[in-house]
Amino acid sequence: MARGFFLFWLIVKYAAMSPFTVTILGSNSAMPTLERNMTAQVINIHDNHLLFDCADGTQLQMRKLKVKMQRINHIFISHMHGDHYFGLIGLIFTYHLLGRQNELHVYGPPILKKIIDIQLEASETKLLYPLSFHPIDSGKSELLLDHRSYTVRSFPVTHSIPTVGFTVTEKQADRKLRKEVLEKENIPVEVRQMIKQGADYTTPEGKFLENESMTEDPPKPRSYAYSSDTRYDESIIDYIKDSNLLYHEATFTEDMKDKALDRFHSTARQAALIAGKAGAGKLVLGHFSARYDELEGLQQEAREVFPNTYLAEDGSVFEVA
Amino acid sequence: MARGFFLFWLIVKYAAMSPFTVTILGSNSAMPTLERNMTAQVINIHDNHLLFDCADGTQLQMRKLKVKMQRINHIFISHMHGDHYFGLIGLIFTYHLLGRQNELHVYGPPILKKIIDIQLEASETKLLYPLSFHPIDSGKSELLLDHRSYTVRSFPVTHSIPTVGFTVTEKQADRKLRKEVLEKENIPVEVRQMIKQGADYTTPEGKFLENESMTEDPPKPRSYAYSSDTRYDESIIDYIKDSNLLYHEATFTEDMKDKALDRFHSTARQAALIAGKAGAGKLVLGHFSARYDELEGLQQEAREVFPNTYLAEDGSVFEVA
Repeated sequence: MARGFFLFWLIVKYAAMSPFTVTILGSNSAMPTLERNMTAQVINIHDNHLLFDCADGTQLQMRKLKVKMQRINHIFISHMHGDHYFGLIGLIFTYHLLGRQNELHVYGPPILKKIIDIQLEASETKLLYPLSFHPIDSGKSELLLDHRSYTVRSFPVTHSIPTVGFTVTEKQADRKLRKEVLEKENIPVEVRQMIKQGADYTTPEGKFLENESMTEDPPKPRSYAYSSDTRYDESIIDYIKDSNLLYHEATFTEDMKDKALDRFHSTARQAALIAGKAGAGKLVLGHFSARYDELEGLQQEAREVFPNTYLAEDGSVFEVA
Repeated sequence: MARGFFLFWLIVKYAAMSPFTVTILGSNSAMPTLERNMTAQVINIHDNHLLFDCADGTQLQMRKLKVKMQRINHIFISHMHGDHYFGLIGLIFTYHLLGRQNELHVYGPPILKKIIDIQLEASETKLLYPLSFHPIDSGKSELLLDHRSYTVRSFPVTHSIPTVGFTVTEKQADRKLRKEVLEKENIPVEVRQMIKQGADYTTPEGKFLENESMTEDPPKPRSYAYSSDTRYDESIIDYIKDSNLLYHEATFTEDMKDKALDRFHSTARQAALIAGKAGAGKLVLGHFSARYDELEGLQQEAREVFPNTYLAEDGSVFEVA
């Protein structure tokens, strides 16, 4: 019973320690409808909260969906179309008014800094918290954030203005100790960290223990890829390969393929083709044209090519697994 | 029966021709709550639709409250605090995406033009419709819009940054013809417009008719005053005198008078004092601090000084009468 409880506690603790989810705050393109706001999503990776894009109305969505906005320390803006960033300045001010003290990191096209600054200047505001701006060069893939347990990278996509997508990737975790072996061999606590990192061990009695006998493979690192707005473009596959979860825009259905091409957007079928070619585990479609009241058609079209496809809906949460 | 119907039709037509209402799109200050968005209101004067301020989330409020956003041709921004203008750029883009063709007039502090332009530039957008910007000089009262049936004027208020309030005032309408006299005296149609404008008339038979015998006084011009954000300041009274409806900010209750002074805002009691001294017909309180879950205290406090006081609530419509 006590052991059962301990195992349960371990599982809960592990799950709580390494969440990796994507919460959709807006799933529409260009304009809001009553049911669907425009692009924004919160990525929770190991209890670090990242915001990808921030359309007009995003802070209201956060309130509605009970997303804890103060937890967000990193905001990534993919490009300078308003349905991806018009809500940012309001959020920056709300943090100020709420007495935020934690540093806020904003990553985006260089002109975004100017737009923030001119609006701070216009309201004669000196923010109460430090805001660090990190310009993104949309012409290449960059390492934007190197956290001890994950990285965020940008990658160029093909849109009507300079635009990037983002990937969030777990770092390889330490090897998992086989507690029963460690106890049996009486391996001291102070060497266990080295063993986790792959070291072999020789006991004081001279018994040589290979690392593999004391450890198990850690879980495979998981990754999430966010296409932002893009035409069908196979050149992104290198960057998003083998993602557990791929969010790919699907502004239109295939019958509007020409319009998609013309507007630098994708169809649901094209998103599914990319997911298949990239070996994604699961595909989430989003950035829907306001013309669609019902989204089933988009999902069905994509599922014909890539069955494990789901629709982004405001408030839905996807596990990256 | 036919005559009854005609009278009914006349009343309906008259009411339809000269509406004058204020629709509250947001009643909170600084930050949105689930029930209250931030400042924006639509004034319908004689079927002309004006937007006063445009906080983040205003276009969503318009959808929710079924306000026909395309009817708005004039937008007035009182000052450069985000809770009064962050939603403007999103609305400007939504009009573009909806294929708007009508000219849009935006009135606001000169720096607002720069902020709009840099965001158009960043998204490489050339708007499909003409946008005319009219800079407001916050240091004085200006005639901003001179329509044939009404005017919009700005007036300076006392806030932490340059800020103006606005008044909307009907022009004196033509005198109302006494149809029964006109018919009895057989007065030709072609002179009736002159008579409406005050002319006397002599019949072909030489009978002199004084204007007053053929016409009635027109309705008294109505006016609406919008204080925007301001400290208690009696200097605004000259500008808003005898308004049928006064919207005055009431960010705090009287127990927070010092904070109100410090933040360049007003208390509900102060708003009521201004309404009384200005001889307003009705007072609407708004711009409430997010600290107040219940607003009854604000209303009660104001009613002790000025009984005809009401609360702005998102979606409420006030007649200017």
